Amino acid sequence: MESRVIIAVDPSPGTSLDRWVSLASSLCDLVAGFKVGLPFMFSYGVSGLRALRGSCDGLLIADFKLADVEHVMVSTLSHVIGYVDGVIAHSFIGLKGGLEGLKGYLDSVGVRLILVISMSHEGSLDVIDVNIDRLLWVADRLKPWGLVAPATRPQVISHVRGRAPWAVILAPGVGVQGARPGDGIRAGADYEIVGRLVTEASNPVEVVKWINGEHARALRERGG
Amino acid sequence: MESRVIIAVDPSPGTSLDRWVSLASSLCDLVAGFKVGLPFMFSYGVSGLRALRGSCDGLLIADFKLADVEHVMVSTLSHVIGYVDGVIAHSFIGLKGGLEGLKGYLDSVGVRLILVISMSHEGSLDVIDVNIDRLLWVADRLKPWGLVAPATRPQVISHVRGRAPWAVILAPGVGVQGARPGDGIRAGADYEIVGRLVTEASNPVEVVKWINGEHARALRERGG
Repeated sequence: MESRVIIAVDPSPGTSLDRWVSLASSLCDLVAGFKVGLPFMFSYGVSGLRALRGSCDGLLIADFKLADVEHVMVSTLSHVIGYVDGVIAHSFIGLKGGLEGLKGYLDSVGVRLILVISMSHEGSLDVIDVNIDRLLWVADRLKPWGLVAPATRPQVISHVRGRAPWAVILAPGVGVQGARPGDGIRAGADYEIVGRLVTEASNPVEVVKWINGEHARALRERGG
Repeated sequence: MESRVIIAVDPSPGTSLDRWVSLASSLCDLVAGFKVGLPFMFSYGVSGLRALRGSCDGLLIADFKLADVEHVMVSTLSHVIGYVDGVIAHSFIGLKGGLEGLKGYLDSVGVRLILVISMSHEGSLDVIDVNIDRLLWVADRLKPWGLVAPATRPQVISHVRGRAPWAVILAPGVGVQGARPGDGIRAGADYEIVGRLVTEASNPVEVVKWINGEHARALRERGG
């Protein structure tokens, strides 16, 4: 079975790039890929991203949670095109002058767009989750490759799964944020995003193998 | 009169840092300050931000449009604390596990929080603007130093002004994005954010002086 695990690479200040390059190499055959956010970029810059890209052929996702006007998002991404396979942006910012242009740009350079529909923290309930059908409308207009919905609220994943059968669903929030491995998959997600549970483990390889096993079990339950 | 102009520093790839450091020095006495976004950080890194900080004592705002969970936002900002006076984040991500922790962190390091309530592009109407009172509720719970509302839709600024009399309002969208200098101030904003209209001008100093004049006129009209 192909792994459903995407590792969130979120370095604390002071951590060396070598640590992440070596972690990515050692996990490469066991996971679907990796995602990096702004902490990684601010720590190691574009050259760090290039090094991570070189360490594993799996999916590499730029999780910058982009939420700006089109020209700023495109200008930001122009630095990382060639190193990443996908980019995460917020559906919240809407189409004209925002996501429409971003989608056109990413299509032109062959990079996948992934839109956040709901987030893993409790504050997501304040504004985001009460707008979920509006956010799905935005996503439906663009048909991005993927959508983000939280493993911490499986019922949200089920809702997104039903409304966007065309989408690959990525589910963050597994581990330190509270969801158990398999919670997202069982609810209909395609990938679970796992960070500190793996990256701060004394034996990351063993933890990933255990998560892969939990995912196999979740897929059997989902199928049955 | 103190200037109401904040210059958006959004470098195209290939532009040298020297150009921006020298622009900041030459405009320093004529503007309220500068803001940098991800294109600046990806081009020049934290050392570029340090150089810009050294070139002018005015406000320096990190406009990263932060919209992530608390631990990722705090980890991102840990790289730039000491160089910036304010940070822009999205009110739509909500309080618990998001903005509450961000506000606490920024208070502890003496940096101002600025929350986006509405954006300058048309896509802002899709989801953001129909939620404006909900977003203002989030802001009201945190009482950040500033709020962002677009000069391209002055009626939105007036609404925010009425609902958040405690806030400093920053209005982007002046120039290339369509609003004229003074539109935001006239509607109740405290600062207008101007990018390419100044930074791509052949004589930025003269353009800023003209904008300052337009602002003085707008303030007289607002007062009268």
